Amino acid sequence: MAHIELPIAPELGREFPGIVGPMTFRPETAAPINALANILLRGESTLTRGERELIATHVSWKNDCFFCQTIHGAVAAAQLGQDENLVQAAKTDWLNAEISSKLKALLNIAGKVQGGGKQVKAEDIAAAREEGATDREIHDTVLIAAMFCMCNRYVDGLGTWAPRDPDTYRARAAEIVEHGYSAVTEAAIAVSIR
Amino acid sequence: MAHIELPIAPELGREFPGIVGPMTFRPETAAPINALANILLRGESTLTRGERELIATHVSWKNDCFFCQTIHGAVAAAQLGQDENLVQAAKTDWLNAEISSKLKALLNIAGKVQGGGKQVKAEDIAAAREEGATDREIHDTVLIAAMFCMCNRYVDGLGTWAPRDPDTYRARAAEIVEHGYSAVTEAAIAVSIR
Repeated sequence: MAHIELPIAPELGREFPGIVGPMTFRPETAAPINALANILLRGESTLTRGERELIATHVSWKNDCFFCQTIHGAVAAAQLGQDENLVQAAKTDWLNAEISSKLKALLNIAGKVQGGGKQVKAEDIAAAREEGATDREIHDTVLIAAMFCMCNRYVDGLGTWAPRDPDTYRARAAEIVEHGYSAVTEAAIAVSIR
Repeated sequence: MAHIELPIAPELGREFPGIVGPMTFRPETAAPINALANILLRGESTLTRGERELIATHVSWKNDCFFCQTIHGAVAAAQLGQDENLVQAAKTDWLNAEISSKLKALLNIAGKVQGGGKQVKAEDIAAAREEGATDREIHDTVLIAAMFCMCNRYVDGLGTWAPRDPDTYRARAAEIVEHGYSAVTEAAIAVSIR
């Protein structure tokens, strides 16, 4: 049971999992959050969608948000050849993961943002630049990390529930990859029962 | 100097302060962030605009973000009869501030969200309900607190600068009160020099 009474998902007989629960409760605030997710995670960028989802997954893991790290990990895997082992490594042990040096430098920045903005030092930025990161890539890394510090707190601060079955997340990830964040949430809002 | 090169504000001869700097750098992501701020802080609600700005100010203070706590403190004061002493008390010592018991219970929840979503316990929610807080008020308190955990990290994670003169914030607050977050940022974007 979440901390507040949320709309019901007809196929579940209870509220939608994770962030979808409060998003069906308050569609007006869901719209800009999903718009931001679509721009940062799926919009035009020199970082791949898989790389951006790994940043989201790593930050959500650092914030101990089971729902967010699992759904964004599943989306990352879906965009990285279903390589769930790579996602697990990048999430929890990125220094030793089979990812580019640039992505490692960006994950270092993202992890510091999670701890607090002031933890990001000039040397963290310089290290990312040395690996070829652009200002736009650094900007988006900081904002993705910051955005997930919002989403993780929204999900856990309202005490939402999260399914444990990985297949549930794989199925939802496939829908997100195909349709994007806004469309998938709007579909849930459309069928939710208040 | 911020960590990345930001557009220049013509009247300053350097980048815009605080969050406005990166927002002029990336207008596409600025739009949904400002839309969310307008809905949560200025939209229809049973919490006053002043109360909601106090929640934003308290969380920004807990995150040690000078720019955000100062500008939102100035906006709160502008909507609370320019009572800057009340804002200072609610920001740093809300238990003893001259605010309603309901707002105290909501500030307690907001402060826990700042520390991490899982810090919010059933008894925190029950205490707010006992003071008359509705599900919608609890939802919005959690999301305002979560949103400022994003904004504070966006501002400090990119190493933006913040003016020290309180009058600068009072003047900007008056513009925000009159025009809202989106309009004030769009005006900055329109004159910024890339």
